[in-house]
Amino acid sequence: MNAPSTTSAVAPDLAGAVHADVGAYVRRVCVAARAASVPMGRASSKSKNHALAELARGLRQRCDEILAANATDVARARAAGLDSAALDRLALSVKSVEAMAAGVNQIARLTDPIGEISDVRPMPSGIQVGRMRVPLGVIGIIYESRPNVTVDAAALCLKSGNATVLRGGSEAIASNQLLARIIADALGAAGLPREAVQLIDTTDRAAVGHMITLPDYIDVIVPRGGRSLIERLMRESRVPMIKHLDGICHVYVDDDADTAMALRIADNAKTQRYGTCNTMETLLVARSVAGAFLPAIGRIYAGKGVELRCCAESLAILAGAGIPGLTPATDADWDTEYLAPILAIRVVQDLDGAIAHINTHGSQHTDAIVTSHHGRAMRFVREVDSASVMVNASTRFADGFEYGLGAEIGISNDKLHARGPVGLEGLTSLKYVVFGNGEVRGD
Amino acid sequence: MNAPSTTSAVAPDLAGAVHADVGAYVRRVCVAARAASVPMGRASSKSKNHALAELARGLRQRCDEILAANATDVARARAAGLDSAALDRLALSVKSVEAMAAGVNQIARLTDPIGEISDVRPMPSGIQVGRMRVPLGVIGIIYESRPNVTVDAAALCLKSGNATVLRGGSEAIASNQLLARIIADALGAAGLPREAVQLIDTTDRAAVGHMITLPDYIDVIVPRGGRSLIERLMRESRVPMIKHLDGICHVYVDDDADTAMALRIADNAKTQRYGTCNTMETLLVARSVAGAFLPAIGRIYAGKGVELRCCAESLAILAGAGIPGLTPATDADWDTEYLAPILAIRVVQDLDGAIAHINTHGSQHTDAIVTSHHGRAMRFVREVDSASVMVNASTRFADGFEYGLGAEIGISNDKLHARGPVGLEGLTSLKYVVFGNGEVRGD
Repeated sequence: MNAPSTTSAVAPDLAGAVHADVGAYVRRVCVAARAASVPMGRASSKSKNHALAELARGLRQRCDEILAANATDVARARAAGLDSAALDRLALSVKSVEAMAAGVNQIARLTDPIGEISDVRPMPSGIQVGRMRVPLGVIGIIYESRPNVTVDAAALCLKSGNATVLRGGSEAIASNQLLARIIADALGAAGLPREAVQLIDTTDRAAVGHMITLPDYIDVIVPRGGRSLIERLMRESRVPMIKHLDGICHVYVDDDADTAMALRIADNAKTQRYGTCNTMETLLVARSVAGAFLPAIGRIYAGKGVELRCCAESLAILAGAGIPGLTPATDADWDTEYLAPILAIRVVQDLDGAIAHINTHGSQHTDAIVTSHHGRAMRFVREVDSASVMVNASTRFADGFEYGLGAEIGISNDKLHARGPVGLEGLTSLKYVVFGNGEVRGD
Repeated sequence: MNAPSTTSAVAPDLAGAVHADVGAYVRRVCVAARAASVPMGRASSKSKNHALAELARGLRQRCDEILAANATDVARARAAGLDSAALDRLALSVKSVEAMAAGVNQIARLTDPIGEISDVRPMPSGIQVGRMRVPLGVIGIIYESRPNVTVDAAALCLKSGNATVLRGGSEAIASNQLLARIIADALGAAGLPREAVQLIDTTDRAAVGHMITLPDYIDVIVPRGGRSLIERLMRESRVPMIKHLDGICHVYVDDDADTAMALRIADNAKTQRYGTCNTMETLLVARSVAGAFLPAIGRIYAGKGVELRCCAESLAILAGAGIPGLTPATDADWDTEYLAPILAIRVVQDLDGAIAHINTHGSQHTDAIVTSHHGRAMRFVREVDSASVMVNASTRFADGFEYGLGAEIGISNDKLHARGPVGLEGLTSLKYVVFGNGEVRGD
């Protein structure tokens, strides 16, 4: 079955739509999303997977159109002076459209979480009490330039039976408008409401302010973007959020670390990719092994051009070993997410010092210990207050795919509801189900 | 071991403390709570249970003191003209102090949820990924008159490894101050920080406004109180909440209901207790059985003096059967939590009509179907969007004890994090734990 193409004939409005009353427009979108969330919550796995298959097919079939819309976004962004990293994030290619489609097919293959009943147990009164997994309802996604988020987020929310309101970056408006049409066409082809995924089609910045103050129509906001966006939402949102803040991740090399393993992990955690939130930003080394370990890891970093910002003690050791690219660390370095070939290094007395440093300066994202000592490994795991705590593994593994979630909508720094990589389960809720046989309550 | 009694010599300050700068005072309390949350998170089950045992013992030992402090609260409240229901909630007795102590002993016997590691699974990369249950951190409880909440909430938060900031009703200030000292003594006797449970010791209403705007020091607010309190907090809180709103609960009597069972459940759900949040407020009856069922249940309600607010159709049937106490329902009745011997009654066409009514007018708290039809039972369970959905059981079972949670801190109407009765698990969070053997990430 082909997706209906009635809407695809409309040329994307490159500058976004203009609404005389943007608040009323956003409310209409959210009211329609709430209405669509009812049939979405009841939709069978079959029809949700049908919509996802249609979406993947639509992306592949309409790849040329997508690239043309995206080219207008890129041209406008370049004319507006967007920097090259931002242009990179904005630009789509045949390969990245295929990757989007493949991602949608992969989400279709995940087990449908909705309707699962678990932990049904008989109670002394005779009733049986269990829990059923259900959608959250309406999910608002607020994100910046990358247009592939439009498809990823829509597919995850669709699979988990939610309706979605998308608010992408204004630079990507033409790409996002076309992608939203392809998504709506796929929903329609599967007999699901087209309003189950809607894009806020205006670049008017006031739209975000309206979205985050409609708790009756949006159940949760997932913000994906820079610190200033998230901080604004934290101040102003009246809707609960699953939010992703900084990743100031640590590797602690313990007294009893296997040196070869510590070198491999400290190298990978920093240098495998510099710009990701699960990249190590501060290396902590136990005093007893600092003299031996630091020159060896310093040579590896030097070979890759990593600038090292060092505490006095590590600076002396590394300088003594002739490592280049050293700078004395300032207090601000312990609290900085570089997202760059820069690493802070600090010598600590022992495990207690490492835990204290991480719980003070970290961002509760991902932290690892390298040690052969079981008791210290387990204390690290218990006492480091982060979403992911690791023993003898690279922080780079903190990721929905590596954790077996199949996909992720983000990595949560929150403690309530969802912590760490958020997959389908994080977009659902558990309600209680009670099966009785006429029981009533006495007292 | 006896609890140290140094602080108990201080007479309770009956009017609450006065702080020149209440904002600075509340911040000091919350900063101390954050610091105390670290050792609490690491505390062994043994020391937490020791503190709970000391607390139960302290309550029993100091029962006379508690009753004396409570008597001053009651006298002041009576002089201030508090109504008799509120005085009832405020007043303690030997029996209620014993019940508090017994509740604390019961919480001590629950399995400690903290540190539990579950679902550890090997991933293709070689790492093993699991989840560990950890405390939320600092929990703020904002509640109204009943002083037993001070002890219940403190005990649950203590057992789950959290620090707690309590803000009770001003009427109960003397009772609460003494109870807070007994709790702190018990913590101290077990070698845990006394600041792990703190009472905001002033009746200054500005204190609440400060508590709810310190997200760096309080991880979650649990409000327990009337609608106006909760609505204020929803507007103003910068801290996430686990909140309890109205219970507009329904029983739907289906076409295929067993009549005797439906009578028993509809009677119990309404009349077993009138003032609880899981009491039925609206009875829905399928049209095909209304003529037979309504007169029978109407006679039961009439015998107990329940006022019936009826749709036109049920009014005609009940009036025709000579049932007294009938009033025509207005639209407002479908949205009202009576907490009184008043019941709204509506005839609906079928299951679809019942689900539509409940999802429109209910409060997503607890709703039940009475039916012998499996398919309709399962549709009701799946499609009614409430925290507890029941088949052939009284709504009165929606309760942490009846669900086997051992205790509850409240019943959540929220969808994020915790839904329905909230026990120890709702006061915890899951973090990811990764066990590796030197794995690093490739791409």
